[in-house]
Amino acid sequence: MTTQPRLVEVRQKVLKQNDLLARSLRQRFRAAGVRVVSLVSSPGAGKTTLLEKLLTRLREEERRVAALVGDLATENDAARLARSLAPVRQITTGTVCHLEAAMVESALDGWRLEELDVLFIENVGNLVCPAGFDLGEAHKVAILSVTEGDDKPLKYPDAFAAASAMVLSKIDLLPHLDFDVERCIAHAHAINPDLAVLQVSARSGEGMTRWVEWLIEASGMAARAERTAHCHA
Amino acid sequence: MTTQPRLVEVRQKVLKQNDLLARSLRQRFRAAGVRVVSLVSSPGAGKTTLLEKLLTRLREEERRVAALVGDLATENDAARLARSLAPVRQITTGTVCHLEAAMVESALDGWRLEELDVLFIENVGNLVCPAGFDLGEAHKVAILSVTEGDDKPLKYPDAFAAASAMVLSKIDLLPHLDFDVERCIAHAHAINPDLAVLQVSARSGEGMTRWVEWLIEASGMAARAERTAHCHA
Repeated sequence: MTTQPRLVEVRQKVLKQNDLLARSLRQRFRAAGVRVVSLVSSPGAGKTTLLEKLLTRLREEERRVAALVGDLATENDAARLARSLAPVRQITTGTVCHLEAAMVESALDGWRLEELDVLFIENVGNLVCPAGFDLGEAHKVAILSVTEGDDKPLKYPDAFAAASAMVLSKIDLLPHLDFDVERCIAHAHAINPDLAVLQVSARSGEGMTRWVEWLIEASGMAARAERTAHCHA
Repeated sequence: MTTQPRLVEVRQKVLKQNDLLARSLRQRFRAAGVRVVSLVSSPGAGKTTLLEKLLTRLREEERRVAALVGDLATENDAARLARSLAPVRQITTGTVCHLEAAMVESALDGWRLEELDVLFIENVGNLVCPAGFDLGEAHKVAILSVTEGDDKPLKYPDAFAAASAMVLSKIDLLPHLDFDVERCIAHAHAINPDLAVLQVSARSGEGMTRWVEWLIEASGMAARAERTAHCHA
């Protein structure tokens, strides 16, 4: 492991710089009244499909939503998400395997955050590296497709330790797989006992309403709506 | 992107050191007559299941095979692969998101490479970071589960550019998915025109014989068997 120590040392510095910037982003988000929710997963777990459906659903409920989406290459995801009619920006990272707070800050340039209820950040498809990089979000959500296997929370513990919720996606495929939902949830709770668990299928729509409800609650939109109602009373 | 340049600079140095060590490993493998094949994929694409079946099949054909398997945490994969009765060693990387040549070198300690035909190296589940780290292998194989979506070669181009073959896994699930095999192959060939493509299902066994044949050919085992036959003639 002779090549590691120098990289680890510099990586620590980068993480520290990132944390400082993420902290100031978090203050900025709080001041603007926007809740930020980031999504992490392996490639192909269904982040973009789920996010497109979420943005559409939340817009139908007159929530003001927007998204930043990270990828190594292509702007395909931003184009897909734009179909929801929500404001969307692509962050193309080149060879960088995760988003960083500085990339988020640059991508926000010119957006009026106080006009948003929720900003989603879709990370690069990678269940390893994004876990260490704070983006100033209020919640990280780890998406695990049931096609990936029920052992994944134990094998990629950092992603699940850092998350507020685990979304089990593609549950319409469960009849064709050897995936034990209860075992997977037990593994996830062994890593993070407070993890909320949501089971969804973007294809059949199963579980989407519950996920939207969780997001509304977690993002404080319900509380804000109540507060507004109280003010108007 | 203020945090990037320093990390990029040190990463270049680490890559260079890694390349030097990988080069000496490659010479060592060549001198010992062992072909090394590494497997990269997202988490949950089926690397370990496919590898377990491969090791079993190759051992049945009296090929001398062994495996190194990388994971962030747990030794579960080594335990699974050991069922094939082939020699297997786990490399646990902690927070490091990919294998490096130095880790491979350490893990080989005490193994007599000249007694092996093929050594497999299963990388950490990550379709991004392993691409840049040469491990001294003769071939990299990128495994893409059809549940991940046919756009992935375009979105994670480095993994497919660096590979000799793309294995499309879990093809038994194709009837339940919107995955266009031809489009996926076209995307992969746009990145790497020389990429061999193999379609397999570890569950049904479909395509496994073809993959074993490809490995025997790519690893030079066929040529060695012929040479041996020639010598004995």
